Amino acid sequence: MKFSTQLEPAKIHTSETLQNERKKANFSLSEMDVFINGQDRIDNREKALKIIRAEPEIFDQRDTYYMSRTEKLEKGYKQEKRLVELLREGKLTSDEVPHLSNILDWPTPFDLTRGMFIPTLQQQCNEEQVEAFLKPALDYRIIGCYAQTEVGHGSNIRGLETTATYAEDTDEFIVNSPTLTSTKWWIGTLGVSATHAVVMAQLIVKGEHIGLYPIIVQIRSMDDHKPLPGVSVGDIGPKMGYNSIDNGYLNFNNIRVPRFNLLQKYISVAKGGVVSKMKNIDPRVTYGTMVYVRANISRNMGHQLAKGVTIAVRYTSVRRQFGEPNQPETPVLDYPIVQYRVLPLLAKTYAMLGMSHEFFAQYQQSQDLIAKGDFSKLKEMHAISCGLKRWTSTACIYGVDTCRHVCGGHGFSQFSGLNDFFANIYPNIIYEGDNFVLAKQTASYLVKSAFALVTGAPVELNDTTNTIKKYINTPAVLSEAELFSWTGKSAAQIAASEKLLLDLLGFRFVSMNHNLGVKINRKGQSWDDSSIESQGVATAHSEYIIALYFSRHIAKLRESSSIKNILRVLFTVSALSFLTSNSAELYSFNKAAAMTKSQIVGLDDELIKYIKLVRHQAVPLVDALHVPDEKLNSSLGRYDGNVYEDYIQRALDEPVNRDGSGDEIRKRFYEKYIGPVLHSTENSKL
Amino acid sequence: MKFSTQLEPAKIHTSETLQNERKKANFSLSEMDVFINGQDRIDNREKALKIIRAEPEIFDQRDTYYMSRTEKLEKGYKQEKRLVELLREGKLTSDEVPHLSNILDWPTPFDLTRGMFIPTLQQQCNEEQVEAFLKPALDYRIIGCYAQTEVGHGSNIRGLETTATYAEDTDEFIVNSPTLTSTKWWIGTLGVSATHAVVMAQLIVKGEHIGLYPIIVQIRSMDDHKPLPGVSVGDIGPKMGYNSIDNGYLNFNNIRVPRFNLLQKYISVAKGGVVSKMKNIDPRVTYGTMVYVRANISRNMGHQLAKGVTIAVRYTSVRRQFGEPNQPETPVLDYPIVQYRVLPLLAKTYAMLGMSHEFFAQYQQSQDLIAKGDFSKLKEMHAISCGLKRWTSTACIYGVDTCRHVCGGHGFSQFSGLNDFFANIYPNIIYEGDNFVLAKQTASYLVKSAFALVTGAPVELNDTTNTIKKYINTPAVLSEAELFSWTGKSAAQIAASEKLLLDLLGFRFVSMNHNLGVKINRKGQSWDDSSIESQGVATAHSEYIIALYFSRHIAKLRESSSIKNILRVLFTVSALSFLTSNSAELYSFNKAAAMTKSQIVGLDDELIKYIKLVRHQAVPLVDALHVPDEKLNSSLGRYDGNVYEDYIQRALDEPVNRDGSGDEIRKRFYEKYIGPVLHSTENSKL
Repeated sequence: MKFSTQLEPAKIHTSETLQNERKKANFSLSEMDVFINGQDRIDNREKALKIIRAEPEIFDQRDTYYMSRTEKLEKGYKQEKRLVELLREGKLTSDEVPHLSNILDWPTPFDLTRGMFIPTLQQQCNEEQVEAFLKPALDYRIIGCYAQTEVGHGSNIRGLETTATYAEDTDEFIVNSPTLTSTKWWIGTLGVSATHAVVMAQLIVKGEHIGLYPIIVQIRSMDDHKPLPGVSVGDIGPKMGYNSIDNGYLNFNNIRVPRFNLLQKYISVAKGGVVSKMKNIDPRVTYGTMVYVRANISRNMGHQLAKGVTIAVRYTSVRRQFGEPNQPETPVLDYPIVQYRVLPLLAKTYAMLGMSHEFFAQYQQSQDLIAKGDFSKLKEMHAISCGLKRWTSTACIYGVDTCRHVCGGHGFSQFSGLNDFFANIYPNIIYEGDNFVLAKQTASYLVKSAFALVTGAPVELNDTTNTIKKYINTPAVLSEAELFSWTGKSAAQIAASEKLLLDLLGFRFVSMNHNLGVKINRKGQSWDDSSIESQGVATAHSEYIIALYFSRHIAKLRESSSIKNILRVLFTVSALSFLTSNSAELYSFNKAAAMTKSQIVGLDDELIKYIKLVRHQAVPLVDALHVPDEKLNSSLGRYDGNVYEDYIQRALDEPVNRDGSGDEIRKRFYEKYIGPVLHSTENSKL
Repeated sequence: MKFSTQLEPAKIHTSETLQNERKKANFSLSEMDVFINGQDRIDNREKALKIIRAEPEIFDQRDTYYMSRTEKLEKGYKQEKRLVELLREGKLTSDEVPHLSNILDWPTPFDLTRGMFIPTLQQQCNEEQVEAFLKPALDYRIIGCYAQTEVGHGSNIRGLETTATYAEDTDEFIVNSPTLTSTKWWIGTLGVSATHAVVMAQLIVKGEHIGLYPIIVQIRSMDDHKPLPGVSVGDIGPKMGYNSIDNGYLNFNNIRVPRFNLLQKYISVAKGGVVSKMKNIDPRVTYGTMVYVRANISRNMGHQLAKGVTIAVRYTSVRRQFGEPNQPETPVLDYPIVQYRVLPLLAKTYAMLGMSHEFFAQYQQSQDLIAKGDFSKLKEMHAISCGLKRWTSTACIYGVDTCRHVCGGHGFSQFSGLNDFFANIYPNIIYEGDNFVLAKQTASYLVKSAFALVTGAPVELNDTTNTIKKYINTPAVLSEAELFSWTGKSAAQIAASEKLLLDLLGFRFVSMNHNLGVKINRKGQSWDDSSIESQGVATAHSEYIIALYFSRHIAKLRESSSIKNILRVLFTVSALSFLTSNSAELYSFNKAAAMTKSQIVGLDDELIKYIKLVRHQAVPLVDALHVPDEKLNSSLGRYDGNVYEDYIQRALDEPVNRDGSGDEIRKRFYEKYIGPVLHSTENSKL
């Protein structure tokens, strides 16, 4: 189906407007790329783009918006097969796969054999198991999944019902799903793909419950891929997002598994049922892994928000609406209400990506210390990682939602690039610790640390505890003027000072944490009843850490750097946006620390002032994030600005419109439904 | 595909837990149904359910979660055809169709011929046009759409580019799309269905631009439904939601339309090009229509949030997680952090539906006055309707999102009922005035009214202006103690008093509006620069009105009514939730009115206390809303509580799992992709 005419474009072409915006850049985009993404990531991005662009028939994602669930799965398999070929041919390494996935920007069916099955084997196989399971898994000769969650049981892993019972007669384990609710559920790569599963099961030997352990179960035949006897396995069906991967269910009817298959790094059961527990994993090592996983989520949330703001900033720069008579309409990004919603998101994107560099550096320091047996940095890292996973995922998901909203009606089209995208990133607020539950982890560390500092118990000093200690100030080290540095300063002075902003962010979390600590330690309030206040405390702490880490990453730049000025503006917008998001927190400071009403209200005005400074650099700033068109997959956010041409072309490609197959569909709709309605000869009582 | 075993249910069955919750009801559910839904709506709901249940092959929505876009459209057409048959057979009336749609709960392809095409014809046809267009449209002999929005032009209708130029030579109009951006876009019922369109076009006669007027254009042949020459028409492709309706695009290459087709109620062009403008529509009548449309959206948002909270409350009541050792796990609704997120939404649902009765009563009063030529109530009605459309749609969409989040991982499954649902209600925040733009309409009325009251200009008195006038208090009528009734009261006293809560909500909007007015009237701040503060002012005003109207609807009950107590609790939770959502607003009261820190912080604690009172009635309260299972279409929210059985059954019905067709799909995936990966004989460099 084609447009009947060669239509003129609008008077100021969207691509021309975008080019004009680009001319305003007052910093080096390539320097910014290195600062924000890092050279490694840039190199990997460019290599991945080459592979993707070389094989559009496999890796072009443009057609995905038209696809049914089954078609999405099939496209995912096609991509997986090609990835494995490229790996086997040595044209791609395992480390590079995530960079390719990052651009394709949807989950693919083998993600969990890579992301969970293999890492579990790497951690928990003994030497024979490495040969039997890990090596073939690394070569995709077996495909695995990690089966923990059950349909009736999520976070509380003690409640899992699946059992692995040692059967002395045949020297095997009997793996069983005793109830409906014990069915394994949500397991990625299981629904259609996996040949094997690591199954988390309650281990029972000689009637004794030993604990929850992982056991490898082959679930499908290596000959024809059919489920083995006693195994019920399938796909859990359509989801909000993630429809290109086969999350599955798994149910065992007393199936027998060789004793060898129990992962034996930390436990073994000898023939006859003698259980030997090796020294268990040091839970502190597990904590280290969780920090790493959550640090990765936090960084990824920055990269995903970068995609959202790239689309929103480019489109609102070229979309015009209202304005002066006899003038071209005004770009909607010139309206304060649009700026106010999208530009702080741009600043936060920079803050999230900037702070991630410092976060990984801190994490690495803590790992280096752990290698020397020193776990002193771990607790704060864990508390920070819980807080940042929570904060960044909420900021990203609802940030992308705001990006969609500022795009107006066209944001609702799949061709905006913001809808399947929103759906695919959404579960980040749920997995690796639900965001509302994670707040407790952070708040608990803060309350305990403050209590220890007040009572003189030993405390490891770090960014968090040093800040708390500063304000406890016992014995008095600092004067009130030093402690409450904002006293007597105007809102403009506060906004202009990195130190004052950090001081306020620091005191805010200390003050809120103090209030919570009083309720818990003095009034005996339970943690369950503290869960609501914990949200605010965790948020305030995360925002302090983000601002602190971001400022440190900026401080690494040489003074003459072209990107330093705009980064400072982005820092200020982020910090002001944190402080003003719930100003009641500022009003509730104690008397010595009190902010005046005019200071507090003034910060709102300062935020708007600094946002206007970002406006003129907005397009260069999203360009500098270097999110490629392949990842954007968006008519509205295209680099070249040919918004409406591409948008219309994508509509013309809609299956119902297509020549041939679309004609058939429309003919069917007309003959079966529309025609009979129009031409019915029935006597109508209408 | 079947489970291999007959599995036992979990120890306390979810349906048993739900039954136990129901036993706690301390009010009459049927009395509540009448109070909230009204007898008319109940009757219509029951009739619609009968029709739906009689023909599951057409009206059962269970299979929609597995469908591709084209399959959804086809199902929509099947339903439309049956609806028209039922209408023609006299088994259904046009007025009843919306009640059926409300339960099916997705848009269907003829929605806009009913919702926009016919109403426009009813308003703007002359007598001959009634015969030619309206009557066949009412009988579905022609199917129409309303083509206003263009791909490059939305809210600013003056910017629309489509032209209708009078051609004297043939006595016709030439309708043309001069540019790419003038292509009509988003038009519902256009993509595949419509035979005719009302096209909003810039009317040009003898070189003179007359204005924007509607003209009827036939776009498809009545014989074979093919697009007529010069008409490019098609579907705009996949969207976030709304995939069961054919939003379309439309482009004209200088097509000729009879002069007769210009809708002639307000303008006519005589042969030769003499333009006669009838008295234009009184813009105040248009305002009245907008009030009605927005009042309907507001009420509908209440009904949609009712669906969300029904699912969330039922599921969190039966989902268990963690708890005491050797006890069944604890229902997650027993955790404060879950209560805090979902139970205020339940209260707000009641507030939204309760206040709607009063809102429609007020609207009817204003219409009765207008019929007598008295427009005095209209301005406030318009300001309220803008505010309530904005407030209720935001509350509903993000409320449903919260409902999804409290359902945990299973909320992400389509079978939760919360995902296609969220997508379909989402555009309510954009259409009929984007929510961020609408705030200005309300704030503008408030600022102007306050200015008039202060300067002594004439003002129509109503709920809004009376409240402003009270606090202007010039000449002094009330003492400070009467004005600021909360002074000296504890948070508990405030929470326990409907009057004090309403006083606070009233003063809050007056105070915020005063601050905005000072900036605009004294400091000359522009409305564009006031757009951010306008959001808060509009929200505060809407929350006052909702609480006021809700309290009035409750006041209609007799004192002995069984539902009065729980409704008062719901009123209190709503009001406290409004007041505490941004406590900084309370801190910023002027000195005479000031609240103390302990009052403000105390309200947070009161809210939590009152939420706990709702907990025990939560399941009866959602039952009383009477959202039928057919509308919920949710495993998690089913009335009978058979959550996991239904959830697993729906997974087994996933196309990839099905016997036969599913086997084929899996075989293809295995033979083409998975098998070659597992069994490749290539030399691997991995």
